[in-house]
Amino acid sequence: MAALDQCYARRVLPDWVFDEDDRRWMEIALAEAEAAADRGEIPVGAVVVGNGAIIGRAGNRRRELVDPTAHAEVLAIRQAAATTGDFRLNGCTLYVTLEPCPMCIATCRQSRLDLVIWGADDPKAGACGSVVDLAEDRRLGPPLAHRGGLEAPASRQLLKLFFAERR
Amino acid sequence: MAALDQCYARRVLPDWVFDEDDRRWMEIALAEAEAAADRGEIPVGAVVVGNGAIIGRAGNRRRELVDPTAHAEVLAIRQAAATTGDFRLNGCTLYVTLEPCPMCIATCRQSRLDLVIWGADDPKAGACGSVVDLAEDRRLGPPLAHRGGLEAPASRQLLKLFFAERR
Repeated sequence: MAALDQCYARRVLPDWVFDEDDRRWMEIALAEAEAAADRGEIPVGAVVVGNGAIIGRAGNRRRELVDPTAHAEVLAIRQAAATTGDFRLNGCTLYVTLEPCPMCIATCRQSRLDLVIWGADDPKAGACGSVVDLAEDRRLGPPLAHRGGLEAPASRQLLKLFFAERR
Repeated sequence: MAALDQCYARRVLPDWVFDEDDRRWMEIALAEAEAAADRGEIPVGAVVVGNGAIIGRAGNRRRELVDPTAHAEVLAIRQAAATTGDFRLNGCTLYVTLEPCPMCIATCRQSRLDLVIWGADDPKAGACGSVVDLAEDRRLGPPLAHRGGLEAPASRQLLKLFFAERR
């Protein structure tokens, strides 16, 4: 029970709390992560869902685009804003295979997303509770809801494989 | 003296601590902010300087580009990375007319900038000490050096004028 309490405190939830839709969108985010690995990029993928449809999807392209901001989340959010013609994404949900870093979670708040669902936790740079908590810091306005742990083993496996091949 | 101590604590420094070069680059950032206002965007401007030359400059273009990430700092950093062909901007300095928000200061850290020099403080969203301190939070790796207060009155004046015209 202590371990489960700790999970909840860090918003890493057991897989069964997510529903079939969540799982379907995360599978697509995982496919984006896999495609990123094939391009030689750290395998992280993201999908923005609005009104039950994908309005943005991307994998990490930092090296390819020579752009320090080209994390999967940022690219998917920019695409979603272009798709909807509105830079505010109220009502939308972001699915991402890895706990967002500070830049990405701050971008999620800038874009007024309703919810972020993430996969594996990131003990090195995670900004949803692992290293800092920027999602729920009320000094920065209304807190951003988020849930972690969906398909975490699949996400972690992709990252492990990627780094194992390179070290 | 108490007031001055408080300034230092918040990294809002008296104008005389900056040198002529700093002032020259900030003037260009202010010109970018003014151009942003002319486009109907919140007037914030930024310049990235590397090896004594401008390698990125931009004003806020959030509405025009329909992009929640299109703050002046992010655009200038992306341009600088494209200019140098390297997504790491070690050795470079960012000049920005307003204290960066969490997204922008996290982007500065992602891009490994050496130093951020900012103008007016932002009591609503500033992430260099005004609301949160993400520049020097050591949990996120080596702290990012920053100094605030350069040409602050000019920056504040642009913002005041912009909002006065719209309210």
